[in-house]
Amino acid sequence: MIVVMKRDAGEKEITAVIARVEEAGMKPHLSRGVERTIVGVLGDVAAKPILRETLERMPGVAEVVLISKPYKLSGREFQTEATVIRVGSVLIGGPELVVMAGPCAAESDEQVLATARAVKAAGATVLRGGAYKPSTSPYQFRGLGPEGLKMLARAKEETGLPLITEVMAPHDVELVARYADILQIGTRNMQNFSLLDEVGQIDKPVLLKRGMSATVHEWLLAAEYVLSQGNKRLMLCERGIRTFETYTRNTMDISSIPIIKKESHLPIIADPSHGTGKWELVTPLALAAVAAGADGLLIEVHPTPQTALKDGLQSLNFENFQALMARLEAVAAAVGRKVAKPVSG
Amino acid sequence: MIVVMKRDAGEKEITAVIARVEEAGMKPHLSRGVERTIVGVLGDVAAKPILRETLERMPGVAEVVLISKPYKLSGREFQTEATVIRVGSVLIGGPELVVMAGPCAAESDEQVLATARAVKAAGATVLRGGAYKPSTSPYQFRGLGPEGLKMLARAKEETGLPLITEVMAPHDVELVARYADILQIGTRNMQNFSLLDEVGQIDKPVLLKRGMSATVHEWLLAAEYVLSQGNKRLMLCERGIRTFETYTRNTMDISSIPIIKKESHLPIIADPSHGTGKWELVTPLALAAVAAGADGLLIEVHPTPQTALKDGLQSLNFENFQALMARLEAVAAAVGRKVAKPVSG
Amino acid sequence: MIVVMKRDAGEKEITAVIARVEEAGMKPHLSRGVERTIVGVLGDVAAKPILRETLERMPGVAEVVLISKPYKLSGREFQTEATVIRVGSVLIGGPELVVMAGPCAAESDEQVLATARAVKAAGATVLRGGAYKPSTSPYQFRGLGPEGLKMLARAKEETGLPLITEVMAPHDVELVARYADILQIGTRNMQNFSLLDEVGQIDKPVLLKRGMSATVHEWLLAAEYVLSQGNKRLMLCERGIRTFETYTRNTMDISSIPIIKKESHLPIIADPSHGTGKWELVTPLALAAVAAGADGLLIEVHPTPQTALKDGLQSLNFENFQALMARLEAVAAAVGRKVAKPVSG
Amino acid sequence: MIVVMKRDAGEKEITAVIARVEEAGMKPHLSRGVERTIVGVLGDVAAKPILRETLERMPGVAEVVLISKPYKLSGREFQTEATVIRVGSVLIGGPELVVMAGPCAAESDEQVLATARAVKAAGATVLRGGAYKPSTSPYQFRGLGPEGLKMLARAKEETGLPLITEVMAPHDVELVARYADILQIGTRNMQNFSLLDEVGQIDKPVLLKRGMSATVHEWLLAAEYVLSQGNKRLMLCERGIRTFETYTRNTMDISSIPIIKKESHLPIIADPSHGTGKWELVTPLALAAVAAGADGLLIEVHPTPQTALKDGLQSLNFENFQALMARLEAVAAAVGRKVAKPVSG
Repeated sequence: MIVVMKRDAGEKEITAVIARVEEAGMKPHLSRGVERTIVGVLGDVAAKPILRETLERMPGVAEVVLISKPYKLSGREFQTEATVIRVGSVLIGGPELVVMAGPCAAESDEQVLATARAVKAAGATVLRGGAYKPSTSPYQFRGLGPEGLKMLARAKEETGLPLITEVMAPHDVELVARYADILQIGTRNMQNFSLLDEVGQIDKPVLLKRGMSATVHEWLLAAEYVLSQGNKRLMLCERGIRTFETYTRNTMDISSIPIIKKESHLPIIADPSHGTGKWELVTPLALAAVAAGADGLLIEVHPTPQTALKDGLQSLNFENFQALMARLEAVAAAVGRKVAKPVSG
Repeated sequence: MIVVMKRDAGEKEITAVIARVEEAGMKPHLSRGVERTIVGVLGDVAAKPILRETLERMPGVAEVVLISKPYKLSGREFQTEATVIRVGSVLIGGPELVVMAGPCAAESDEQVLATARAVKAAGATVLRGGAYKPSTSPYQFRGLGPEGLKMLARAKEETGLPLITEVMAPHDVELVARYADILQIGTRNMQNFSLLDEVGQIDKPVLLKRGMSATVHEWLLAAEYVLSQGNKRLMLCERGIRTFETYTRNTMDISSIPIIKKESHLPIIADPSHGTGKWELVTPLALAAVAAGADGLLIEVHPTPQTALKDGLQSLNFENFQALMARLEAVAAAVGRKVAKPVSG
Repeated sequence: MIVVMKRDAGEKEITAVIARVEEAGMKPHLSRGVERTIVGVLGDVAAKPILRETLERMPGVAEVVLISKPYKLSGREFQTEATVIRVGSVLIGGPELVVMAGPCAAESDEQVLATARAVKAAGATVLRGGAYKPSTSPYQFRGLGPEGLKMLARAKEETGLPLITEVMAPHDVELVARYADILQIGTRNMQNFSLLDEVGQIDKPVLLKRGMSATVHEWLLAAEYVLSQGNKRLMLCERGIRTFETYTRNTMDISSIPIIKKESHLPIIADPSHGTGKWELVTPLALAAVAAGADGLLIEVHPTPQTALKDGLQSLNFENFQALMARLEAVAAAVGRKVAKPVSG
Repeated sequence: MIVVMKRDAGEKEITAVIARVEEAGMKPHLSRGVERTIVGVLGDVAAKPILRETLERMPGVAEVVLISKPYKLSGREFQTEATVIRVGSVLIGGPELVVMAGPCAAESDEQVLATARAVKAAGATVLRGGAYKPSTSPYQFRGLGPEGLKMLARAKEETGLPLITEVMAPHDVELVARYADILQIGTRNMQNFSLLDEVGQIDKPVLLKRGMSATVHEWLLAAEYVLSQGNKRLMLCERGIRTFETYTRNTMDISSIPIIKKESHLPIIADPSHGTGKWELVTPLALAAVAAGADGLLIEVHPTPQTALKDGLQSLNFENFQALMARLEAVAAAVGRKVAKPVSG
């Protein structure tokens, strides 16, 4: 249930509504938009049929709307305006398209720095790179951990690019948040609820990847975990789903992009590197994602993909990444967007 | 195995190669390209190890290439140049993008004709429409049959648009081919091998939809059925695959478009109407398909989708189809294509 | 809608009900059970709200029931008693468990006859074997056709085992029905509607395999095609569905067995050979299917699986088939069934 | 790589092998079986080709075997004898079948205790019940936490049944392990690697559920995380995978049971409650799992399923659970097993 306040409603009236909601045993959720202020009512509303009527009669209340969708905070019903997230000088979810690029995993200072410089030169505005890597087998490379974070931080400082990096465990959130500008939740952790609770309480933007077998519905409910803890700087990321097809590593579900745009106000990023698992498919799928309405891209780039410790098959080399960026501009323009430019640094 | 002839090889040399292949119990398959003439050798080549050497030594032969992929005739190894199919004045698989649009099913002369005129006015160059409809339940609408074919034929004559329509049974191929300019094989019939054999023997272009649970590999092998019967005017159509996601009717596998472009020389068409099952997703997915390299689109359009006898939920009305066409032009240009124009008629 | 007649309703009353249904533009479907006679009403019942009331008032009518499930003829609502199908001396769908076994494809008289004798000796009561084989590639073995049918017929005559064999095209139905005691519709043809229409009109039992990506709902609607054409001797066969798992060829959906038992009155057979694609998994899955309530098994057996022209990996040799039969008896008894015995011949 | 010691090899020889492995930069893994002692060599063996030869020549070494499968510790190559895990007086993975039953979630002392008594009376030997519940939405019931653990502990004390309960976060492992006899890792956490690392270091048996979109291969690699941390008392649990079928909540992959038996030495438990999501399918699937070789069952039972706070649709009431146990005995006997009996308490 959502209480929509009148445009001229004052603080006193808002406070009264919140108090009344709490009194009824529900959890109020305040959202101040440019257009209107809204109080979300979380809890078993059906059990208190009288509450709606009571709220409707309170001063300052414009209307009380029942929400049918179970994703309250992430849904368009709750917030019609698109969420725009500022990361340094970059705005994610606005008219500009944001390209986040870099190595799958930090391997060495040289590799990270060379890649950061190359992706910046080609037009990326955020640096991606992993220090904690989910690995299907315990005997494979699991990332350099704190040492990797430091490498990424040095490249960030050198280039001025904000950093997105993955966090895999609740007890690592604090450390990773010290280095990262955006915390990434990976596909295997989309329903790691204690991790979601944790990143819901920090003051850093979060990118939530779709679980490889999650429906859009479940994905938005996972988003709800983060949002309901108070962190509203959340963006989503389509990275392919698991199907019977074996040619690609995953099947990139491009339709999820316009679906998220319709159902939610959160920005949606596309990851064609994991979405396809093959570098030669990354560019066409990146262009498709942008044509379908994506707010940004997450792309794996490596100086020498053939020697990468992880995911070399799906990484672009510098030349191919430049070629992608060159083609991206035109497609973005065709759908009324332009590619964000890195600040000079 | 493929025998590549020298550029200056004469008819006599080509005939000798064909005779030698037949003598060895294999089936020769002649392909004359602008660049080079090729003789495909179909059969259990591994069982005749001496044959390769024999062929290599024959006059006029440039080289003999072993093909690793099981899809011989549809593969890029066999034919590097893209197949371009002429339908009336329309070229499918060339630089221009072909839009095929119309109702899911022919319902009445008025409905078919009104739709044909509207899609032509908006820029479609081929009319789509079904007279034989696959229906999950025998109690649902299964199409008007011969009467529907006649309605479509009248609309074709009136507008000058060539017609694509589905054929579902081997014994209907002859009748449908009398009316249609392109015969469509639906998703449920991708592995209806007797139907594939039949359309492989007619002198009309064929559009082969991907089976809803077919891998790209299996799809190309189904194409092989048509091609190996002699009909080379074949195009493929991605229409979504079956996954766990329930928000959409199918999951449109946009990655199959660049995959087909890489593996095969056949044109690839995208059907975002069936690919999503929701009209509001048709436009973003159509744009995505074109950005990813599709050669054309197959779109369901209906005067009043809410009253359609079949698939109304995924049909665009005239206004929405015009809006799609308007946006399509820009995205096509961004990837170096332009939308084919209908001949004035 | 179903019209349930009174126990003492006479022919005249039944005929009157049928006439009234036809008059209303619906298709009547007469079903005489031991317990009660029923007239199914097929068509858009909702469009004729008055019809129900009219029928309820007619003499001899006990009640008129609206059916919510779209599968009318195959559903338990329509017929509560289990369908039992007689094939020679074998009863399928009754208390006894029927084992159908034999080679995937007929290759030679020796191979077919040796296998038929072996499976009969081990306790199979129906001979399986294919003359028309669906093959993903046109360059693979597609079966021996009419010659294969004759081989199977000779083995049938020699052993006295009734024969089940696949038919793939409408125009082959008549020929195959001349040799076969049960016609098998394969997984790729579950929605080959013209084939379903055809086998719905013959006087031979039909086994309808589940499409590899068909839901149970769609499978029962495919059954509806056969039943609504008049052929009521229909049995279903679970043979595995397509999932992301690659260890097995398909994922055998054992839960579909009790689901079919609950939703439908038709017999349900399990095919663990295709369901797993690996011979070493055939026995445990066969036992599981019987424990879950299957009415029979369809098992591939070959004298020398390693040299089979088709599906050798999933075929049992004679020794392994005997071992399966030995273990089957105990599991069948544990769920209150026993394995049918072949007639001596 | 695996070093198999001779039967008469002494401690000194084993220690020398371990030292040599560590010297080469690999991680040794000692496994003392009744039949033979083995030293697993974990690490990039291919990079040290000389190591194998060196080890082969050491005293006490019978042979050095290269392992092709990536799951070293969980694989049958590494350990041929089945792992049997003692929990109180119960042996899991031996000839007896273990039934673990109880409510999805602990709701109250009355509910937990009544259920514990009922399942014990019916023949269950382990009590299941959740205090921490993964919930797709943050607004649904997430379990009673520590209070729930205490309820379960009281029922355990009262009935003498050992307790299995889920742990969802690394920081809860210590607390949960204080109450539980077996720690359960749920399907969403199969690749929560920090949680796997954590339960790999405790001295309590662990049950690892299959991820809902995990292949058997990935599941065994997740098991490898637990085993390689030192905790060898690990059992696996099939609970259904995600497919396109919507009739059931998941598709229970019965074939994974014989696959695990073949590939691994770990016990395999079946959870037909989550595997089907429908109580009326629980019994046939439980019987099927046992017929296919499962070592035990995990069944949800609730005094009044219709009022359950979680998963009521898939819970058996007491009467239906008794009926299941009655039928189980016969099927277990048919495959040479018997159902373990609870100790009187």
